[in-house]
Amino acid sequence: MTDFTHINEEGRARMVDISDKQETARSAIARTSVIVNEAIYHGIQQNDMKKGDVLSVAQVAGIMAAKNTSTIIPMCHPLSLTGVDLSFSWEAMEEDAYRLHITSEVKTKGSTGVEMEALTSASAAALTVYDMCKAVDKGITIGETYLEKKTGGKSGDYYRTLQGEE
Amino acid sequence: MTDFTHINEEGRARMVDISDKQETARSAIARTSVIVNEAIYHGIQQNDMKKGDVLSVAQVAGIMAAKNTSTIIPMCHPLSLTGVDLSFSWEAMEEDAYRLHITSEVKTKGSTGVEMEALTSASAAALTVYDMCKAVDKGITIGETYLEKKTGGKSGDYYRTLQGEE
Amino acid sequence: MTDFTHINEEGRARMVDISDKQETARSAIARTSVIVNEAIYHGIQQNDMKKGDVLSVAQVAGIMAAKNTSTIIPMCHPLSLTGVDLSFSWEAMEEDAYRLHITSEVKTKGSTGVEMEALTSASAAALTVYDMCKAVDKGITIGETYLEKKTGGKSGDYYRTLQGEE
Amino acid sequence: MTDFTHINEEGRARMVDISDKQETARSAIARTSVIVNEAIYHGIQQNDMKKGDVLSVAQVAGIMAAKNTSTIIPMCHPLSLTGVDLSFSWEAMEEDAYRLHITSEVKTKGSTGVEMEALTSASAAALTVYDMCKAVDKGITIGETYLEKKTGGKSGDYYRTLQGEE
Amino acid sequence: MTDFTHINEEGRARMVDISDKQETARSAIARTSVIVNEAIYHGIQQNDMKKGDVLSVAQVAGIMAAKNTSTIIPMCHPLSLTGVDLSFSWEAMEEDAYRLHITSEVKTKGSTGVEMEALTSASAAALTVYDMCKAVDKGITIGETYLEKKTGGKSGDYYRTLQGEE
Amino acid sequence: MTDFTHINEEGRARMVDISDKQETARSAIARTSVIVNEAIYHGIQQNDMKKGDVLSVAQVAGIMAAKNTSTIIPMCHPLSLTGVDLSFSWEAMEEDAYRLHITSEVKTKGSTGVEMEALTSASAAALTVYDMCKAVDKGITIGETYLEKKTGGKSGDYYRTLQGEE
Repeated sequence: MTDFTHINEEGRARMVDISDKQETARSAIARTSVIVNEAIYHGIQQNDMKKGDVLSVAQVAGIMAAKNTSTIIPMCHPLSLTGVDLSFSWEAMEEDAYRLHITSEVKTKGSTGVEMEALTSASAAALTVYDMCKAVDKGITIGETYLEKKTGGKSGDYYRTLQGEE
Repeated sequence: MTDFTHINEEGRARMVDISDKQETARSAIARTSVIVNEAIYHGIQQNDMKKGDVLSVAQVAGIMAAKNTSTIIPMCHPLSLTGVDLSFSWEAMEEDAYRLHITSEVKTKGSTGVEMEALTSASAAALTVYDMCKAVDKGITIGETYLEKKTGGKSGDYYRTLQGEE
Repeated sequence: MTDFTHINEEGRARMVDISDKQETARSAIARTSVIVNEAIYHGIQQNDMKKGDVLSVAQVAGIMAAKNTSTIIPMCHPLSLTGVDLSFSWEAMEEDAYRLHITSEVKTKGSTGVEMEALTSASAAALTVYDMCKAVDKGITIGETYLEKKTGGKSGDYYRTLQGEE
Repeated sequence: MTDFTHINEEGRARMVDISDKQETARSAIARTSVIVNEAIYHGIQQNDMKKGDVLSVAQVAGIMAAKNTSTIIPMCHPLSLTGVDLSFSWEAMEEDAYRLHITSEVKTKGSTGVEMEALTSASAAALTVYDMCKAVDKGITIGETYLEKKTGGKSGDYYRTLQGEE
Repeated sequence: MTDFTHINEEGRARMVDISDKQETARSAIARTSVIVNEAIYHGIQQNDMKKGDVLSVAQVAGIMAAKNTSTIIPMCHPLSLTGVDLSFSWEAMEEDAYRLHITSEVKTKGSTGVEMEALTSASAAALTVYDMCKAVDKGITIGETYLEKKTGGKSGDYYRTLQGEE
Repeated sequence: MTDFTHINEEGRARMVDISDKQETARSAIARTSVIVNEAIYHGIQQNDMKKGDVLSVAQVAGIMAAKNTSTIIPMCHPLSLTGVDLSFSWEAMEEDAYRLHITSEVKTKGSTGVEMEALTSASAAALTVYDMCKAVDKGITIGETYLEKKTGGKSGDYYRTLQGEE
């Protein structure tokens, strides 16, 4: 039987007790993507040459969301993050579609991992790209969101095994 | 040339002026999903019979995120939401995988749409499911996130054209 | 059978749809109290003569909590409050105990009532008094918290019927 | 004369300097209650058998409020909590009234205690119960709120001495 | 005698009752500046040619602060802003110093003005410039911050009378 | 060439990685001021004799802003502050103007300095004074805001060299 650590003796949710866990250096990398049409791709690219572009705002959104993760995800522990960095890259897809890859890396020295901070950060950046481009096309899709890698902590390091596409 | 409304005369981002837009009834429906393994599927299902289950917490997270959208998405206007509702359904996939579909519907009477509130709400619910099940499997993937439908406002209604499987 | 409006068709919680409710002037008055020993009573009273006293900080806490109610109470609608005012009065009890009565009145022009804002505001003020005096006595008790009165809205006005002492 | 540590040399409030206090394991347990009529009691109980019940939402509210305590209580230090857990139990009272007991336990490894986090958590849970049931009866009363126990820190452990009924 | 509207009958602060004020279109423009040395001036200017520059982050900070004003300024009413826009310009001063002028314009349709939103927005942008450049020089000074103009509302329009240089 | 530590390899902003920095005791003192006319000066002074005065609210605003700094300033690290204290003093200027000096001192034991917390705290206090007195005169000016002193950390202590006025 699967044993959810977030469930207390009454069968209700709790914030898991991590008082006995060691404070160690930890990091997590999460990935997501945004699939846009050609008009938006060119718009972001052109603007990218200038100040104040879409990706700059998305990046600030991602960094601030990493810091706010414990207020967005109910059972997530508050953590003092030591670093947050997002990066972007473009991939041309078939049929006038372009995929913007978003990667967020979060670091801490703490008693629990920062997987949720990295995932929430990447999601907020993707949602911000949607927000700033939705006047052009509401059909923008946010691609799959997942944990790429984590290091540190008792459960050891984790590397996602890529299988097939995305 | 694509014209991003979020860019001001200096080429920087701004929060678009909506002072002249009418206050009307508006709604938006967004969808996302979470793909989990069999152990997690059965764990959530069993727990679902009891109080305090994973989906209850995810739902609260989704409702609170809808209300906090303008603090998560930088250029998003603050809005007084009049209703938020999330629903969940399971789909069996091949190879011991299960997809949890998450739908969030948000309503307002305001001067701008609630697409971002619906999308942010669905994302927060999905991230919460990840958080509560990650001790069992860190390979959980959040599926594509997109706008299903919106109604109200000058730009008219929008219905996503589904092409192939999600 | 009791019908909870906060429960959706799946039996889960939702933020109730108030799109069809009228925007009207509404107000609510909530009350709570803090029971302290004589040392704390005299400390607050003396300090009360000076600037920066305990009750000033409690009052600011109450006003800010009224504004943050929809981020503290999950199913509560966000509202643009038009006024918040707290007042305090002392009552001597038997055995060297003193009761500080706290009353919070909140007003809005909106589609739903402000009962929760008044109750949350009064609670935050009481908790702040506890916080600022707990170094003297951890046995401080926050008394009963309840809605005294509400006006406006379709369900009509409400006045609490006092039965016996609080 | 009572000496309030929160008052600075100018007689104004400050956030007390805890730089010299040791980081140790600390815990606090706070209690409150909600007194409801028979219709609400049965409603919560029936719903309790299903997913998404009132108490699940109250519990999430309590956990999130514990994490937000330093933004609700002005002079309260920000802390990285290591665990939060709420529990509920019913007590039948005379005259068709029922008391829902709410207990919140909060843990940290830090330089100051978590009494305020436990008290704020219990209060938020009680206010959430009020919010979700107020459509049935606005006369719901939140009972006394107090610190039951604290451990850790230089001032030592504290156990409330119960005198008579709550 | 000066009559502060924020003071209630007990002599304590309150959030002023604006229930009777009309909802009208309102705007406010606030100004501040940041005085930096030549190294920082050239750094920001060079970076300005690239994506992700200091001023982009400052602008996002200013927009988000405008939205959060009522949680930063205790007696400030929550408002649904309809637009926020910041602009920047440089002025060479004597002795290798450069002044970055920051202007923030905020709009709403509401019952009270947006002076505080404009001022808070400009201040947050200036503080963000300080934060991102402080590793180069901690002697950066934020210049005077003031209301340049406001329109709308019963008290009429306001234009600052400039006397001498800022 | 000036090297901004907040810029990542893509030329975008990031939250700097401080994982390798030592946790040490750190403090920072920031100063700002508010220039008001005689009517406001006397109003604040008279009120100062009573409870609930303008400066009390400003002080609470300053303390809460110090705690919220990392949510206001995008690239600022979240920190567990150990102490915050604000003080006020008046200076008579020529021509019926009075300057209210505001000093904020913030302390932490952490991996990065608290300059931003002190500056943000002082700014929030000044903005709050503006807010509470703007009904009397919208021409109130917030004076220069700057870092007075910092201690702790690898970059060593810093004391501002005062040159000329303010």
